[in-house]
Amino acid sequence: MTVASIDHANWLTSRVEHIESILETLLPAPDVVPQRLHEAMRYAVLGGGKRVRAALLFAAGEAVLQGSAPSMAQEKSLNYAAAAVELIHAYSLVHDDLPCMDDDILRRGRPTVHVAFDEATAMLVGDALQPLAFEWLAAMPVAPALIVQAVTVLAKAAGSSGMVGGQAIDCDSVGKDLNLDALQHMHKLKTGALLKGSIVLGGIVAGASSSQRQILSEFGELMGLGFQIQDDILDVTSDSTTLGKTAGKDLADNKPTYVALLGLEGARQRLAQLHEEARLMLRPLGQSGQYLHYLADYIVGRTY
Amino acid sequence: MTVASIDHANWLTSRVEHIESILETLLPAPDVVPQRLHEAMRYAVLGGGKRVRAALLFAAGEAVLQGSAPSMAQEKSLNYAAAAVELIHAYSLVHDDLPCMDDDILRRGRPTVHVAFDEATAMLVGDALQPLAFEWLAAMPVAPALIVQAVTVLAKAAGSSGMVGGQAIDCDSVGKDLNLDALQHMHKLKTGALLKGSIVLGGIVAGASSSQRQILSEFGELMGLGFQIQDDILDVTSDSTTLGKTAGKDLADNKPTYVALLGLEGARQRLAQLHEEARLMLRPLGQSGQYLHYLADYIVGRTY
Repeated sequence: MTVASIDHANWLTSRVEHIESILETLLPAPDVVPQRLHEAMRYAVLGGGKRVRAALLFAAGEAVLQGSAPSMAQEKSLNYAAAAVELIHAYSLVHDDLPCMDDDILRRGRPTVHVAFDEATAMLVGDALQPLAFEWLAAMPVAPALIVQAVTVLAKAAGSSGMVGGQAIDCDSVGKDLNLDALQHMHKLKTGALLKGSIVLGGIVAGASSSQRQILSEFGELMGLGFQIQDDILDVTSDSTTLGKTAGKDLADNKPTYVALLGLEGARQRLAQLHEEARLMLRPLGQSGQYLHYLADYIVGRTY
Repeated sequence: MTVASIDHANWLTSRVEHIESILETLLPAPDVVPQRLHEAMRYAVLGGGKRVRAALLFAAGEAVLQGSAPSMAQEKSLNYAAAAVELIHAYSLVHDDLPCMDDDILRRGRPTVHVAFDEATAMLVGDALQPLAFEWLAAMPVAPALIVQAVTVLAKAAGSSGMVGGQAIDCDSVGKDLNLDALQHMHKLKTGALLKGSIVLGGIVAGASSSQRQILSEFGELMGLGFQIQDDILDVTSDSTTLGKTAGKDLADNKPTYVALLGLEGARQRLAQLHEEARLMLRPLGQSGQYLHYLADYIVGRTY
């Protein structure tokens, strides 16, 4: 690794540790009533996860701040927003793992929430994490008008025109032949909406101009697709221990994937192409876009 | 009925029709992708329901406006807020009815969402309705600072210190001996938090002073308890056709209820006492609190 890439890897490690401690502090303590629910919420959110969404949010914030230090209020707000997107992501995993959905027993190398607790608790964990995300956005010490924008962005990213909508299309398409456009649309919602939303939120909190928002939004869209293609590739090239979840599951479940549609080489080529587009997209941000650059490399190159 | 009570009954009918048409308009159309999810969301929200929460929200707004007509922006905002609380209520019913929770097949006299569609769709319906509620709050044409307050109130009412927390305590207490304090605490969260939140939201949107908010909040708390006591009474005194859901279910499931703890007469007495407290609470609002008065009578006296 070059010195720069070591610095970037250190930055990511420090951001991951940072968001973990923020989540640890902000989540309801396990001794607060209802204890079992709070314990399960902490189990679902803490202790692992790549924290890609939080990292993208922080990186977008840095890109917009153009090298100047964030105010204390901005820093606190970025923390709340990053924690909020991680809540939405964590809740979606808990619900996706339930028997009526993917019926998965392993997540981040540990029993899924409904296995460690029970199904009803897993359902309620998801149901409680979602409003908590909006509560945290509303607690950001920024101008109320920015909070309103942030709530709108996160709500749309999470809802039926975003993540949950993509999940619904995914459920409906099991066993069906999806063409590339339909697959792309599904992933744009299922994975892309929240990744893009995280990046845009970082920009909003840091006071992005409308042209900066536009760059962040388009870059976010590409990252969403890139993330999913790499996920599909890893599903067939990696093993369960490395992934921390069941490998080969999409294939076994007859789910449409990029690899199924394009072949492994075709999927890798499409990913490389997206990666290049994303790098070009960031050019106007100059040096301050360095962490977004690094995360783009990280997302398409990750092995788990 | 007296002329006044006929007027009030007409007011309630008109408000119920009004919120139904607002929800009908605001919900994603069934031909928008993902169609099946949107169809199921509409099935879950539209076509029935007493709309008590929306009515309380409108009544609280009227109480704060003190007889003056709302501005167009206030009226629109009250509509959005009322629709938002109905979404949260509707989602909670969809998830509560699932096999891993109450496993109920009948709701408002129709098959529950997971019966009419499937379990995965029912889960996703709930997951999509929740962020939509916050999206609608963020769309209210009022001062952003009021939106931020509204988001906070609804998020807390819906989350682990509110409705979902109460549901978790309820799940954990099946088959256990709960004393009256514990039962009360559970219902304060499970049913009370959102009823109270609806009333407070109506006040916030209409520009309530802090003393008005205090009245609305305490009145809301009493209504939450009163609503649940009457629910428990109806569970043993009414039939499934009248209720539109399975009667006698709490008793059969060995769930703690007011009737189980206080007996039928004891529960009725406690309800009458709460009702009287609630009426006294509204006194400072004078004539403009008339619809809240009426709804208090309605809630404790309802037969379904």
